[in-house]
Parts: sequence; C-alpha cells; structure tokens
Amino acid sequence: MLIHEDRLFPADPTTRTIAKALYDSVRALPLVSPHGHTQAVWFSKNEPFPDPAKLFVQPDHYIYRMLYSQGLSMEDLEIGVEHIQNPRRVWRLFASHYYLFRGTPTRLWLDFAFQELFGLTERLSEKTSDLYFDTISEKLNTPAFLPRALYDSFHMEVLATTDAPFDSLNDHQAIRDSGWKARIIPTFRPDSVVDPDFAGFRENITRLGQVTGEDTSTWSGYLNALRKSRERFRKMGATATDHGHPTANTANLTETEAVALFAKVLSGKADKNEHELFRAQMLTEMARMSVEDGLVMQIHPGSARNHNRRLYEKYGRDIGADIPTATNYVDGLRPLLEVVGNEPGLTIILFTLDESTYSRELAPLAGHYPCLRLGPPWWFYDSPEGMTRFRELVTETAGFYNTVGFNDDTRAFLSIPARHDVARRVDCAYLARLVADYRITEQEAFEVAHELTYGLAKRAYHL
Amino acid sequence: MLIHEDRLFPADPTTRTIAKALYDSVRALPLVSPHGHTQAVWFSKNEPFPDPAKLFVQPDHYIYRMLYSQGLSMEDLEIGVEHIQNPRRVWRLFASHYYLFRGTPTRLWLDFAFQELFGLTERLSEKTSDLYFDTISEKLNTPAFLPRALYDSFHMEVLATTDAPFDSLNDHQAIRDSGWKARIIPTFRPDSVVDPDFAGFRENITRLGQVTGEDTSTWSGYLNALRKSRERFRKMGATATDHGHPTANTANLTETEAVALFAKVLSGKADKNEHELFRAQMLTEMARMSVEDGLVMQIHPGSARNHNRRLYEKYGRDIGADIPTATNYVDGLRPLLEVVGNEPGLTIILFTLDESTYSRELAPLAGHYPCLRLGPPWWFYDSPEGMTRFRELVTETAGFYNTVGFNDDTRAFLSIPARHDVARRVDCAYLARLVADYRITEQEAFEVAHELTYGLAKRAYHL
Amino acid sequence: MLIHEDRLFPADPTTRTIAKALYDSVRALPLVSPHGHTQAVWFSKNEPFPDPAKLFVQPDHYIYRMLYSQGLSMEDLEIGVEHIQNPRRVWRLFASHYYLFRGTPTRLWLDFAFQELFGLTERLSEKTSDLYFDTISEKLNTPAFLPRALYDSFHMEVLATTDAPFDSLNDHQAIRDSGWKARIIPTFRPDSVVDPDFAGFRENITRLGQVTGEDTSTWSGYLNALRKSRERFRKMGATATDHGHPTANTANLTETEAVALFAKVLSGKADKNEHELFRAQMLTEMARMSVEDGLVMQIHPGSARNHNRRLYEKYGRDIGADIPTATNYVDGLRPLLEVVGNEPGLTIILFTLDESTYSRELAPLAGHYPCLRLGPPWWFYDSPEGMTRFRELVTETAGFYNTVGFNDDTRAFLSIPARHDVARRVDCAYLARLVADYRITEQEAFEVAHELTYGLAKRAYHL
Repeated sequence: MLIHEDRLFPADPTTRTIAKALYDSVRALPLVSPHGHTQAVWFSKNEPFPDPAKLFVQPDHYIYRMLYSQGLSMEDLEIGVEHIQNPRRVWRLFASHYYLFRGTPTRLWLDFAFQELFGLTERLSEKTSDLYFDTISEKLNTPAFLPRALYDSFHMEVLATTDAPFDSLNDHQAIRDSGWKARIIPTFRPDSVVDPDFAGFRENITRLGQVTGEDTSTWSGYLNALRKSRERFRKMGATATDHGHPTANTANLTETEAVALFAKVLSGKADKNEHELFRAQMLTEMARMSVEDGLVMQIHPGSARNHNRRLYEKYGRDIGADIPTATNYVDGLRPLLEVVGNEPGLTIILFTLDESTYSRELAPLAGHYPCLRLGPPWWFYDSPEGMTRFRELVTETAGFYNTVGFNDDTRAFLSIPARHDVARRVDCAYLARLVADYRITEQEAFEVAHELTYGLAKRAYHL
Repeated sequence: MLIHEDRLFPADPTTRTIAKALYDSVRALPLVSPHGHTQAVWFSKNEPFPDPAKLFVQPDHYIYRMLYSQGLSMEDLEIGVEHIQNPRRVWRLFASHYYLFRGTPTRLWLDFAFQELFGLTERLSEKTSDLYFDTISEKLNTPAFLPRALYDSFHMEVLATTDAPFDSLNDHQAIRDSGWKARIIPTFRPDSVVDPDFAGFRENITRLGQVTGEDTSTWSGYLNALRKSRERFRKMGATATDHGHPTANTANLTETEAVALFAKVLSGKADKNEHELFRAQMLTEMARMSVEDGLVMQIHPGSARNHNRRLYEKYGRDIGADIPTATNYVDGLRPLLEVVGNEPGLTIILFTLDESTYSRELAPLAGHYPCLRLGPPWWFYDSPEGMTRFRELVTETAGFYNTVGFNDDTRAFLSIPARHDVARRVDCAYLARLVADYRITEQEAFEVAHELTYGLAKRAYHL
Repeated sequence: MLIHEDRLFPADPTTRTIAKALYDSVRALPLVSPHGHTQAVWFSKNEPFPDPAKLFVQPDHYIYRMLYSQGLSMEDLEIGVEHIQNPRRVWRLFASHYYLFRGTPTRLWLDFAFQELFGLTERLSEKTSDLYFDTISEKLNTPAFLPRALYDSFHMEVLATTDAPFDSLNDHQAIRDSGWKARIIPTFRPDSVVDPDFAGFRENITRLGQVTGEDTSTWSGYLNALRKSRERFRKMGATATDHGHPTANTANLTETEAVALFAKVLSGKADKNEHELFRAQMLTEMARMSVEDGLVMQIHPGSARNHNRRLYEKYGRDIGADIPTATNYVDGLRPLLEVVGNEPGLTIILFTLDESTYSRELAPLAGHYPCLRLGPPWWFYDSPEGMTRFRELVTETAGFYNTVGFNDDTRAFLSIPARHDVARRVDCAYLARLVADYRITEQEAFEVAHELTYGLAKRAYHL
C-alpha cells in the first residue's frame, strides 16, 4: 500500500488514539473549497482529463520545480508546450525521480490520488512507470473520471475558482444552466487591472472599460468599472475577492492624490514606488467596496514572482520560480485598517509566505481587529510541518476562531481530497496533543475539529 | 474539574514521569515576581476586589482583545468606563464566549484561578455564568480574598510593581509603615520622561524638575533629576528599571550632541527620527546610571503601540491593539554595548516580541556579553508553546544560566499563581525531554529546575 | 558514564526503535568532512597536541564565549596568549563552570571526546578537574593521540581545511609527499582579497600579485591572479571555495563599472556602500570562475563580525563576539543567479545564520535553481534542536536531495567524531519520526540516512 490509515498521527499511542477518534468524526464531512485555481471549463464541458503527464506533471509547479532543481530540463519535461510529444517519456522521467519527493507534501498528495483514485499500490518508480501510465490513462477515459463525476465522488459542497475581472464567466453560467447540482463559484481577482506591473496592465484597464461600459481612463470610471465587475461576480455566486500583491502595503490617499496617481500610472510614467503606492491604494479601495457589497477579501502577499528571469522570459509566469519574501503586515496594513478596521460585517482573510509573522504580527492583528481572519498555511506551507507550525504559532494569541479552516488552493483537481485529508489529519493531531496534555478536553476537541474542517470555512467565506 | 494535575506534561509516559518528578520538586517554591503591573495601592489599602467583571474582564487586554476580535463591542463590554453599569451582563457576555479562549494561555490561567481560588469545577459558559458571578462575588468579600491575604496565601516572596518617575511611592511607603511583612517594591520606569512621543512628555519633564528640585530644562539638570529619582526608588527597595521602547535602538552621542538634541526635543521642533535618536541615547544614559547605582536594567522593545487609532482616540492606551514588530538587537544595542557592554556588575535583561531574534540575535548576544541576560517569553509568548520555543531556540547557544527565570508581568493579581505554575510545568517538561533523550542527567535537571524557578530570578534581579 | 548509547533518540519507544535501527546502519560509515578549520600543519608535522587548556579551551570560541558571558575574564582564561602560563588553573576555571554548558552542543561534543577518546566516566567539575587534566595530558603524549593516528582512528575519508589565497599549501604538499594515505585537501577562501573591510586588504592584493605573477593593480590582472590561485588549490586537491560575507548581496556590474569600482576600492577612497558592492560583485565573479573550473562554491553570509569592539581591539578576530544578522537571500542572490543560476554543472552551497530564511527563502530557492544546494545548520545551529528545525523547515519544500549532508566546520579536531555522531543521530531521529507517522517507509529511511551521512556530501562537494 502507498498510504497508511494512521498516517500523520502522533506516534505516542495515547495521543494517536485521540487523534484517530477526532479524525473519524470529520473524515467524511463534505469538502468546502473556498479558494483554488481549478477551471470552470472542466465542469462546463465535462471532458475527460488528458494523459498522466499532461494531468499531473505539466501543470504542477510543485513537481517540476523539484525536478528542475535536480538538473532535469524544462525541455525534457515538455513544460510549457501545447501538445506533449511524448507523454510516456515525460512520465518516466518523473517516475524515475519520484524519490526526490520523499518527505514533501507532493508525495502525500500523489500517493493518496494514486491509491485512492487509481487503485495503485506499488510506489511510483522507473520500474512501475508504465504500469502507472497505463492504469491512469485507462481510468481517465472512464465515465467515473469525468470532472463532474469526480466532483460528486469527492463529496464536494462548494468549489471556488479564481477569475480575472474580464472573465466572461460563461463557463460558470453554463454549469448553472446545465442543471447539474454542484456549487461552483467564481472569485474576483483583479490583479491584472490594479497592479501596474502586471503584463498588459493598461490594455487590461481599457478592456475593463469596454466590458463594463465605463470610462476607465478616469479614476471614478475605473472604480465604477470595478464595482460593476464585482457585482457581476457576486450575481454568479462569488462571495470573495482575492489579491496577490508583492507586499502587504496599503495606503489611504486623498481623492485628489488618488486621481493624480491613477493618471500618472495610466500614462506609463510612474516609477516603481508609485506602482507600489497604487497597488497599496487599491487594496484600500477594494476593502471599501467589500464594506459596500459584502465580498470577503483575501490578501495573498509576499511572493517575489518570476525570480528566475531566464525561465520567465522563455516560459512566462508560474514556472516554479516564485520565492517568498519577508513581509511587514503591521505597518503595511495600518492605512487600510485605519479606514475599515473596525467595520462590522467586513472580513479580510490574510495569508503569508513569511512564517516569522505568524506569532509576531498576524496572530496579534487577527486577535484584535474584528475584520481580520487568518487564512490557512499557504503554498510552501500547505504541508504537515507547515500546518503544525501555524497552529502552534497562532492559536495561543488568536485562538481557533480567528482562523478560517482549510483552502486547497490548487490547480490540481485530483489532489483536492488528498489535500483536505492531510489538513484534517494534521489539525486532529494538533488537537490531540492539546487533549493529551489537558489543555482542552476531548469534547472540546471534537467541536473544534468540526469547526476547523467545516464550520469556519463556511462562515468566514459566507458560504 | 477544570484543570488536570498532569496538565502541560509530555504525553510520552517516561518523559511525563520525569516531568512530574521535576515539577514536584519546585511546585511549592515561593513565588518571586520581579516584573509586573500590579498596584501598590491594593496592598496599602487592602480593600476587597470589586465584582467579577471589574476584576477579570475590564482590566485584562488578553480577554477583551479576543472578544473584540470576534465582533463584541467595547461598549457592550463596558471597557474604559469608571463604573460598570451591568457587571452581571458583562460577565455573561464573557462567559458565553469563553470557548474562544480554547488553546490560549488565558484559558489556562483563568481555569486555574476559578478552580484553585474559587472552587469552581464546571467550565465557564453561558449556562454557568451566574454561578460563577455569584460564587466569585461572594468570595471576594471574605477576608481570605483581601489583597494581603491573597499575597500571603500565594506564598509570594517578593512582588515588584512598575512605576513612573513621579510616582510618590506613598503606597509603597504605607505598606512598609504598616508592619505587614511583605516585600513589595517599585520599579523605575521612565518612559514618560525619556520618550518624546509619550503623551505629555514636556509637561512630564517639568514635573520631574519640580519633584526633584532640578532644572530639567538643561541636559545636566535633567540627568540629575533622573539620578535622584532612581535613588528615591532604590531607597524604597527598587532593584531594577524598565524601559518600553518601540525599538532596541541605542546611541552614543557626544556631550555636545546630546545637549543640542535635548534642547531640540524639548522645544517641540524635533522630528520623529530625532525622537527615536533621543530615546536611543537615553537607553545608553540609563545604562550608565545603572553602572553607577547598580539597578538592573530591563528593556522591553518592539511593540507598535495603539495600532488601532479609532480605539486609541476613544479609549486611550493599553486597549489590546499593541502589535509586535520586527526588532534588530544586533545593530540597535551596539552603541550602548560599546559603552558598557563589558562592565562588571551591570545587568541588562532583554525581552522581545520578535521570536525570530531568539536564536539569531538574543542567544548569541547573551551568550557573549557579560552584562546581558534574557528575560522570559513576553506577553503573547507567555504561553506553553511560547515558553517551549524560547527554551528550544535559546538554550543551545546561551545555556540556562544566561536566562533569568520567570516574570508574570501581569496586571491581573489573581492570575499570578497560575502563571508561575504554567512556567514551572513547561520548564519541567522541557527539562524532562532533555533527560529522556540523555542530553542531561536527571540530577542536573533537578538543579536546573530549581534555578529556573527560583535561583536565577533572585540573582539576576539582585533580590 | 558521560554519554548514553540512546542519546538524542526520540522518547517514544516505537520511534526510538526505528531511530536506533537507522543509526546502526550509518554509525560506522567513514567521516566525510568537506568544510572545516583544522590545520594541515598538524598532519604534516604530526606532533603531539599540547595540554588540555591549550587544546580544548583556548581555541574554542564556543567555550570561552560562554565563560565570558558569565563574568570570567579573558585574562584569567589566558585567551590570546602565546604560551599559557598556568594551564592547570585555566582548566580548573573551565571545569568548575562546566555546568554552564548543560543543554548545549558543546557539552555533547566534549562528553563524547572525554569518554570515547580519554576513557573518562565521571562528569567534568571542579572536583574532577585534576583527574581530567592529568588523564588528558598523559594520553596526548602517546602515539595513539598523534594527529595522524587520530585521523586514522576517526575513520576519516576526507578532510578539507580552509585556506587564504596566499597560503603556500606547503603543509598539504608535505602530507602528500609523506606517503601517508590520507586525503587532506585545501579550500580556497578569498575573503582577505575580495573584502575591502578585511584587515590588510590592499596589502593582501599586492601579495596576491607577487605570488601569482599578475599585475593585481588592474581588474583583469586581479581576476587572473584569482584564477591562478584557484588553479593552484585545485591541483592540490581542492574541490571547493568558501566565502564569508556580511550579507548575501551579489551584483552584476558591467565590465566598465567593475573596472572603476576596483580602482576606487584599491585607492582607499571607496565608502562602505562601495565596499559592499565590491564584495557583491566578487561573489558573482567567483561564481563565474566556478562555472569555468568546477570548484563548488560555499557562501557563509550574515555574521556581524567583531561586535564587541573592546575585545576585538585587544584580542583580534574570532573571539566569540560574532553575532548573526537578518539576511536577505531572495534579493541578494538575484544578480548572481541571473548570470549563472541555470548553469549545468555549477554547485553553490548556501549557509545561513538566520533561521527565518530556511522555509521562506532558502528551501524555495534550492528547490528551484539547479545550481543551489543547502548547507547543514551552521555554527550556533550545529546542534540537536538546530538540526531538527533545519529538517522540519526545509524538507517539505526542498526535499532531502537539495541538501548536502553534514559539515563539522570545526577548529577542534578532537570534536569531529562527536559532531558527526550528533548529526547522524539527529537525522536518524528525524527520519524515524517520518517513518513512525507513515510519511516515508522504513526502507526509504535507510536509503535517505545513508545519503545524509555519506552520499550527498560526496556528490555535492565532488569528492
């Protein structure tokens, strides 16, 4: 077998027994996925997923960044090509280097999918490469592996995608029109029209004007266009926005200053500090709109994108070379919080790639401001040790109830059950330790486990 | 029962047995409280503590920050009002949200007080709210719950308060005059006259001149006034000073520079960098005076005070919106250490709200400079996980003997036994782990446990 | 006994059993020491080591920094003197303060050496001070304790020293010429000629020119001189360079800019920012040369050297007052990585004294760039807790195979077996935890344990 039924539980027998009991009480709860990067088109079209290389290797930066770090070339892995020429060869390259993932969450997720979805029981390696390729290929062409069938079999209650403001949302509409009873909702992600460093920023703003019928060459028209876009998303079921900024900086400019800055940014003459200031101001504007329309605001700051310039120039974004940076939430968020920090009804969910901020900044902020909640460990920290550190560093100051449950945050649809399973196990293991040394009672742990698995996500995201 | 006799001990049976034996050897040692925020007036007047809401909820920012973070209003909690209108209702609000504190140290401290002091055995909740209110109210009016009786029953050996330079110390004098055999001593905390950003800074300096008979409009008169104030504190039993600065910056200006800076700061024309430089210089001046008069110097840097401006404007300081910031001790302390770093007899105790400095900066500094010692985990880190991280991150470089034992650092007098109890348990648990994997012997652990509980605090604070 | 056969293994019985099995499989593997500070002259001359004070106390900044921090004077410890006047007295001072090292790695290393090499079984203390002094003194004069005999008995496979570019490498040559079958190789450490703040920088560059026959007053001559020096080291067996910079900053200047900067730096008129820029540029130059000649590049950044000015002025470098500082690898390394980050065949091994960078910066960088590997926990973190944190923070993102095994990095030759033993035990304990909660299989753990102990160091350092 690839995975053990007691995986990720504490070794101490007493604590393990408690963890198992807690996990048994939440393992079958429906999956709530309020933040991720799956694509609505999969579910509107409901076509079979392609071959194993295209499905598992090509879109998963967790996988190819590790392979690249060990000297495999992007060319050999056929990353970034439209049609993989030799998927069986790509798969074999991956298979023969699968040992590199020992001790990583990728290994946990994949082994779960391989065993639970595809019935494979011998570890992936060069030896089993073809067996895997053939088994997975075959199953992907059966009705049970069509996107909608998988969604249903995953026992999903809601799945949020992440979408640009121009997205037609036609695929979301098509899902609704199809009569299929699934809750797949969009998330409003305006980076492409609020970040002057985003590729095509000015064209994007023009396009935003066309889509909304607003004059986006003016500050007020631009804000109205954003408002209208948010409303369109909200009508399609969106309950949240999402913001991926290089820092957590926010600003609180006067109207006059904002008008001038917007004009300069649009003119293309703004420098990088002004770009940063514009992003900062836009977070505050987005928060103001969230007070108006009730959309939950997610902030994902602190990634130095496209660090490897050569790969970026050849392959574009999301190629595995985004690196976390130190992030200052205390000063960064202050301007925004001075505007909306005490607003009833507002929810802002903070994420981080800088774990030194968990106990120093994020837990104290979320443990005070009524609008702030802490998102789960993100990206590199969506892992057993990462989740454990999160709870250990956050709970004593912010408690459990200022956190929001789990996000799978994935492009890899097939990994969703595995990711939620890891989170449930790790949270139950953490709770079991608190029970074992009498910090909370077992009865309380059952309640909290249910909240961490289900209740908090539902409430924080207004689902 | 609310608390278990084996709470906070490791789950592994062998390790737990060691931890219990260590704890049994220190549990009954007297409480040494060298740094805290209780009030001398309680003990000079020895009047009953007021109702449960006034006693537990209103003064405890750990409590109302959490309640506020979850949407309760300061108005409903009657924070900041002189006379609580409806203490039973405030108490019920707290009781019905007590579950929010699961996993926090507040929960550990309160449950200890509820059970050990008030004999309550069913968890606080909306259901038990009135039972708690009535039980606590009744006991508070019995002689055993008067401040002096509690002090005696807590088995306290010494208790230090924290006092402004103008404080008359009349309450301390009254305690001495009363013949009650308790050691309650002041601590010299000059923030109000050394920090130009402190409310009323210039008036405070004028007042300092009046109290000491020095011309505090001159640099030398100002320093003399501080010297005289320190001497007055020392005569009233003080052994230490305390300094709460936004950063750990220190400076080493020439006499001429210092005179000019002081004049500018007093004139009100200094900018924020000059304010920071003045604070920095004053840390060095205070260190120089400590070399002269032997007072132990405590530095508590790195809190961004009053982060929530709206609450600050309405309720003032200490309202739960102080947020830690990243702190640089290596560059910050260098000027001061160049002046006094190798002075025999000088003791400077460093605290931090930035845990990333434990292993990177604080342990290496304290493991080298003879004047430096590390204070216990402070504020948000006065908690089981916080204390465990402190030992794990500090001990391998600085050892145990460059630390100073526990500070309860509390305004909540009734929580003092609980806080010391948590510290004793967590330290014994840590030592037990070192014994269990043979890093130290059990005999050594008994010696170290006694030092961490009692000996180090006595010696570090010259008590 | 001083050390227990199960030391550093997890307390949980199941996990301990796994850890022991793993350790048994690697305990007898030969020692690979690719980075350290032992001296070739010991092995070329093969003379007896001096008395215990000279051997253990005087050269070991881990020891005297702790003693100094607790008030012992450098004079009493006879630090920095050529000939210790009273070694027995120095030893007694150390012995009577040996309890200060409880919980530190120094204690683990010394107890190992005392027991395993010298057969001592009662703990060092004032009482046993003379027994230790006499026992050690006696053994040091036996043939079995001569440097070469110890090297052989330690079962060392390779030992790298660290050497300035001018070093004649005569001792290395003498070892080769002697016919003794040991592999002792130099490492090219050019700090003294690439860091303008290094004492004697300009004279060093002149000397470099004399040694290499190049005109080091020109940029191209200077680079050629470095190239020739590297080649001389390579011929003497060197496989690596080493770079100790205050930061991780790198630069990518144009030829013209570099020529001008070099001239200014040589003129003595450069300011501290230009010194930093020069160091930054030189890291990139060194990386370019590594692409050419295949030498593995080690970067050890982030130490604020000689923090205690008074001691530095009296005793010089390496006196225990080097303090870590926050380090930025993401921005710092970018210029270098833009030049050589994707070069096949290049290996750059990164070290840190800022543990907050493990998960935030170093693991993501090493988990992407093919040239980057992570060195083991360095200096203050060469310790059980430090190593455990390293694995916990790094593995989930970078895996095991982007790390390079253990470095003892020591001046203390007699501690080498102890240090490797600690690393082997801690790594096996970590792996055992992954096995115990089913993250990897026991069979995989055996493979990985072998890699962490032996294989990775051999391959990463091209040994």
